[in-house]
Amino acid sequence: MPDAPKNDRFLRALQGLPVDRTPVWIMRQAGRYLPEYRETRKQASDFMTLCSTPELACEVTLQPLQRFPLDAAILFSDILTIPDAMGLGLYFSEGEGPKFKHPLQDENAIKQLPIPDPESELRYVMDAVKLIRRELDNTIPLIGFSGSPWTLATYMVEGGSTKTFSVIKKMLYQQPECLHQLLEKNTTAIIRYLQAQTAAGAQALMLFDTWGGVLTPTAYQTFSLNYMQQIVHALKENTDTRDTPIVLFTKNGGQWLNLIADTGCDAVGVDWTTSLRIARLRVQDRVTLQGNLDPSVLHASPEAIQTEVANTLADYGYGHRHIFNLGHGIQPQTNPEHVAAMLEAVHQLSPQYKKSNA
Amino acid sequence: MPDAPKNDRFLRALQGLPVDRTPVWIMRQAGRYLPEYRETRKQASDFMTLCSTPELACEVTLQPLQRFPLDAAILFSDILTIPDAMGLGLYFSEGEGPKFKHPLQDENAIKQLPIPDPESELRYVMDAVKLIRRELDNTIPLIGFSGSPWTLATYMVEGGSTKTFSVIKKMLYQQPECLHQLLEKNTTAIIRYLQAQTAAGAQALMLFDTWGGVLTPTAYQTFSLNYMQQIVHALKENTDTRDTPIVLFTKNGGQWLNLIADTGCDAVGVDWTTSLRIARLRVQDRVTLQGNLDPSVLHASPEAIQTEVANTLADYGYGHRHIFNLGHGIQPQTNPEHVAAMLEAVHQLSPQYKKSNA
Repeated sequence: MPDAPKNDRFLRALQGLPVDRTPVWIMRQAGRYLPEYRETRKQASDFMTLCSTPELACEVTLQPLQRFPLDAAILFSDILTIPDAMGLGLYFSEGEGPKFKHPLQDENAIKQLPIPDPESELRYVMDAVKLIRRELDNTIPLIGFSGSPWTLATYMVEGGSTKTFSVIKKMLYQQPECLHQLLEKNTTAIIRYLQAQTAAGAQALMLFDTWGGVLTPTAYQTFSLNYMQQIVHALKENTDTRDTPIVLFTKNGGQWLNLIADTGCDAVGVDWTTSLRIARLRVQDRVTLQGNLDPSVLHASPEAIQTEVANTLADYGYGHRHIFNLGHGIQPQTNPEHVAAMLEAVHQLSPQYKKSNA
Repeated sequence: MPDAPKNDRFLRALQGLPVDRTPVWIMRQAGRYLPEYRETRKQASDFMTLCSTPELACEVTLQPLQRFPLDAAILFSDILTIPDAMGLGLYFSEGEGPKFKHPLQDENAIKQLPIPDPESELRYVMDAVKLIRRELDNTIPLIGFSGSPWTLATYMVEGGSTKTFSVIKKMLYQQPECLHQLLEKNTTAIIRYLQAQTAAGAQALMLFDTWGGVLTPTAYQTFSLNYMQQIVHALKENTDTRDTPIVLFTKNGGQWLNLIADTGCDAVGVDWTTSLRIARLRVQDRVTLQGNLDPSVLHASPEAIQTEVANTLADYGYGHRHIFNLGHGIQPQTNPEHVAAMLEAVHQLSPQYKKSNA
């Protein structure tokens, strides 16, 4: 790799190459649990301004790296930038999460949905990626990302967060072709978006399928995994992106890890409801596993955190295809000192699992 | 059975005896989706008054049976009656779900927690059971129920609903013995409560472990399943309850169905994220399976509903140990006519799976 970062543990683990210890990063590592993030947040009138101002997005991306010895940076952005660029009008209402001013109401709205050009309509993301890469100066790799086609669709059709997914599931069961049209558009948009992020400097990619786990096994394969697979194939067939490792993560997708690994992705995210030992049996070391400490463990004492880190590392066992992470995003109320305790435990306890060739 | 109901399909399926068609009932079948329920609800000043007035609880329990050809009735009550009887002060705030005035703050509060006498402090539940049994007049069986020890504990410690379970998980990882004390008390209280429900006339029992699925596999076994198993054992060892079948249901527990079946329960509830075919392989026909249509399917057209019912029945396949149900409670916005379509499909399509001895 021409621009290999000095710390290449994360990229090596993604490729299944030997590492001295388990690489570690944290989902939502740049976020509200950090006081410095909350300070920067005040400079932006709203959350989307923070995401769409490259200097601010770069600043918050770098904050956790200045504090903690992490092995990867991840672009600070939102999973809903694509539907926003499609004209749905993303906004964040206090305490209610993301919402769209113009949710998709019918088949006609889906038919008319434009596929955004990432280089112009999502330029702010590419500018942030370039700026972050420059600031990182090849110390550690930068991860780019997108929401999965299905996960984006849930927000686009429901108009925001939902507990029951009743509107999109009505579409799924009653007008499946209509939903497929939407998922195809999302898939095309995501492929272009991830290609553009890679061109701008992202060194690994991750698809967040936050809501694939609310589907039946059949619906998951048809309406979520199928489209993630198309994305993996498109990226692996393109000479500009084929060497960029891609991680797929379906929250509550523990029962389908073997199917996820079958897509040809390089790594699979695992939440804490599946043990890494079982996960490893399911994927048969074809892919790297990323996870899976319960984020709530970080509310316990540093001693308890160390015990749970030890359990997680032992659960994966000997081998080089493990990237330590939480099983979901870090919670806003987390004490940063407890994050430091977690990282210290990974640093101290993981080298023993790299000494064997097993 | 001395008081066997005329329609004994549900009880026969629980025992693995041949049935002419798949029995069916619906979790939360007495509830807000029924206009007659909403009318009765107005007669009570709050939700707990509805639950604790035997005449009203009986009335709403019977409402779905007057409308639909269901194979079982389930006591109308709340899963949090036990902690309420322990003095935690259950109330329902509009749109926020159940809350406790006095959540458990520390080990001392847990130590002082009394175990309620169901015959006096939960007398209103037993009175409702007796009244419902009298009104049912042995037409169909009545199911009694409780929340699981862990599920009750989440509300008791968090003080209400939660997305992250951060308070109780902090206790779990940092003061596990303290949590075990609470779970032991809940277990004792639940055993007495279910024994009293059986004595009052409940003909089957169900434990709702709504939140077991938010735990790691190890924590699930230690802090949820372990205590459900104690309840099953206690009920099976007691001559008054040993013939009363018991159903365990852990939402998002699809990966642990074999462990749940190992408790000695008679049936296991399955949500829609696990296929019944896989579920059946996991439990090896040791237990009856109950489920698992996605409640959101009921928002689709009657034709789509019929297709999904057909898929669910085919997924279980030939055999007598299936009880049709939703994979979780019916949603308040559901159209009752769509429920009728679902039941009609079960009635029409399930007899074919009972003709073989396979």
